[in-house]
Amino acid sequence: MSGKQDIYKPRPVSGFLEWLPEVRLVEQRWLDNIREAFEAYGFASIETPSVEEIEVLAAKGGDADKEIYGLRRLAAEPGEEDGGRLALHYDLTVPLARYVAQHFGDLVFPFKRYQIQRCWRGERPQEGRLREFMQCDIDVIDMDEVSLHFDAEIPEMTLDVLSRLDIGPVRLHINNRKILQGFYQGLGIEDVVGAIRIADKMDKIGEDGVLEGLVGELDIPPVVARKCVELASIKSDNTGFAEQVRAFGIDNDLLEAGLEELTFVMLELAHLEKGTVLADMSIARGFDYYTGTVYEGKLADYPDFPTVCAGGRYDNLVGSYSRQKLPGVGISIGFSRIFSKLVKEGRIELGAKCPTAVMVACLPGSSRTDLAVTSRKLRERGIKVEMYHEAKSVKAQMKYASRKGIPYVWFPANSEQPEHEVKNMDTGEQAVADIETWMP
Amino acid sequence: MSGKQDIYKPRPVSGFLEWLPEVRLVEQRWLDNIREAFEAYGFASIETPSVEEIEVLAAKGGDADKEIYGLRRLAAEPGEEDGGRLALHYDLTVPLARYVAQHFGDLVFPFKRYQIQRCWRGERPQEGRLREFMQCDIDVIDMDEVSLHFDAEIPEMTLDVLSRLDIGPVRLHINNRKILQGFYQGLGIEDVVGAIRIADKMDKIGEDGVLEGLVGELDIPPVVARKCVELASIKSDNTGFAEQVRAFGIDNDLLEAGLEELTFVMLELAHLEKGTVLADMSIARGFDYYTGTVYEGKLADYPDFPTVCAGGRYDNLVGSYSRQKLPGVGISIGFSRIFSKLVKEGRIELGAKCPTAVMVACLPGSSRTDLAVTSRKLRERGIKVEMYHEAKSVKAQMKYASRKGIPYVWFPANSEQPEHEVKNMDTGEQAVADIETWMP
Repeated sequence: MSGKQDIYKPRPVSGFLEWLPEVRLVEQRWLDNIREAFEAYGFASIETPSVEEIEVLAAKGGDADKEIYGLRRLAAEPGEEDGGRLALHYDLTVPLARYVAQHFGDLVFPFKRYQIQRCWRGERPQEGRLREFMQCDIDVIDMDEVSLHFDAEIPEMTLDVLSRLDIGPVRLHINNRKILQGFYQGLGIEDVVGAIRIADKMDKIGEDGVLEGLVGELDIPPVVARKCVELASIKSDNTGFAEQVRAFGIDNDLLEAGLEELTFVMLELAHLEKGTVLADMSIARGFDYYTGTVYEGKLADYPDFPTVCAGGRYDNLVGSYSRQKLPGVGISIGFSRIFSKLVKEGRIELGAKCPTAVMVACLPGSSRTDLAVTSRKLRERGIKVEMYHEAKSVKAQMKYASRKGIPYVWFPANSEQPEHEVKNMDTGEQAVADIETWMP
Repeated sequence: MSGKQDIYKPRPVSGFLEWLPEVRLVEQRWLDNIREAFEAYGFASIETPSVEEIEVLAAKGGDADKEIYGLRRLAAEPGEEDGGRLALHYDLTVPLARYVAQHFGDLVFPFKRYQIQRCWRGERPQEGRLREFMQCDIDVIDMDEVSLHFDAEIPEMTLDVLSRLDIGPVRLHINNRKILQGFYQGLGIEDVVGAIRIADKMDKIGEDGVLEGLVGELDIPPVVARKCVELASIKSDNTGFAEQVRAFGIDNDLLEAGLEELTFVMLELAHLEKGTVLADMSIARGFDYYTGTVYEGKLADYPDFPTVCAGGRYDNLVGSYSRQKLPGVGISIGFSRIFSKLVKEGRIELGAKCPTAVMVACLPGSSRTDLAVTSRKLRERGIKVEMYHEAKSVKAQMKYASRKGIPYVWFPANSEQPEHEVKNMDTGEQAVADIETWMP
């Protein structure tokens, strides 16, 4: 640690976020709000290790392994297990599935959990994507069947959570995969999954692009392809969507089941503020494991903003790890993606650089004991108190408080000043204060 | 996600902790208490990425790299940067040093930060050590010089923090490296660092072992070695230690400086409860970068329990990353080590499996809207409310509440029951409740 060592000048690592204290204070408040909202609905917190076995991550299939960060012990000796079978988790769904399978006998179902943790994806740095990010997930898992009630409660909670952040109104778009699948099946489309995947790109490639894809890639007759595009344009903030879909005259049991489920969910959400929930037939969600309700949350005032949350219902969470059938429904909030975008665009209002409510000044007439006793008394009433560390000039102490954004400075009673006084750093006013009752 | 896939049965990964919801609830409460205490003193939270560049970790020297987990992108293409220059941090001191060096111009000094984050060490699993653990660090960093006041405030805060956990009384042992160095120098010992390192093993190898080491390994005359051992036996809960050390008659400026500093710190801590702070000449702390005050916290009632916190003063935090001299003083609480040991020994009292204060029952006479409105009203008053999801039998609903440890069940007013009623699950009593005023 001597100053004579070589200097290694650290540079920021792309894709990994780091905030100054004033930004971190806001981030922490946001995370507290989210947690408070989750708990207001009785959801229990879990945390899982940052790593899973690579086999666990791989058991879920897909091309997820492309983005995985494996671990390696730098000092592994030849032949020694070198951490090589461990990797950082890339989402909170795989860890949840593994957790539920592993602790099955110790959990009470329906199991309602929230999880706020970092995830990692080994994205190529040049893509400017986040390689470490915080996700906030809620899921309800039950044995054999999960009540449709939760398909409504999960988005209601999510809207409550998001309303506690400074991101303006959020609109939750809801659909049901059964509607899409039944509709496409009813139209005689063979590659339903492929067709849904193309239709899901509407945002990026537009109606014409989707039509081209359906006709060109999947050989779907243009008149049928057009119906898929028309379906996607149906949106309603009540249960009216069902009638519009039924007007196509397609007879399919899966479609009917989907319409009934979505109608139930929309009715259960009818008490929410108008415009916050939208039945939207264009929502598909890329992941094929969703089997019923699907969600996507968007900022109502910023249509170009990325999806703030997404999720849906799945038939079996733990299929890769257990024979027990455990369906569920959940939503994931992409916390870091939202927060970092707002910070970078300067849309987060920054305040103080520390949590201090009042700084106790250190004046020549006061003993350290005076300061310590004053600080302790204020702390005992829940006030956050910083004690200035040396009897420097009042000017120097005020400068420190002001640079840190501390709202009040306390001058303890001492031999020269018989009463406590407090200065409001905002207005500059200074007044006598009662240490037993004063509040910031 | 189909049930026909192969089943991969996950097993716990050794060295990585995971808790059931009822344990996690306690862990979260502990972490909240710690954070609250840190903030009560005006310390600001920071979080750093989970990774640092390997060069940053290596710049600190020592054999730390033996324990580092490096990252590798599993799907790296040949020639592609594969995450190989990144590694998980193994403590929060290196990230703090890098953070302060990197954001120097944006921080206000003295910079008082706390940091509660996971750390990783690539320990060999067979050693049964934690490979992922949570640490809670506090440090004050200042430019050129850091006030000795903080050498007292940091342990005072730490004692306050630890008193908010259910671990019984903690005793903080304090020493000053200058006392050891000056004393050894004054005795004419050449390899002072080597001698301190041997004396520091007193706990493990006993007085005779230390004597043998000093004489046998370092060729120190037995009469001198005995004085080292005698020094280590000096302990006092006031400033009396200084007189006892001075009684050896050793004339050394560094020794005198150390005695004065420790006397100042003990005087500043004199207002704390007797027995919580002990000047203890046997404390050395292994790390050579400590240059003044050093701390070790132990559970007063469990002498065999590992150190619960440790730290000290260092002359220059960022020597490896910047030419600016930034001394500091700090303490690190080994949260996971304490918590997991207490959990494993069954010394943590477990309660509910969820944060719910009251469960709103779903009776046949109630509509979903009744339940939703009741729940919302209670939530608006800050009560954590779980809504039962289906109109199952009252017995089934009671069983669920009881298995989760939910303390109250609410029966909403409905067509058959004109008033709200609440059942206390502990006593079994059920009574009419006013939704505007009832509190759990």
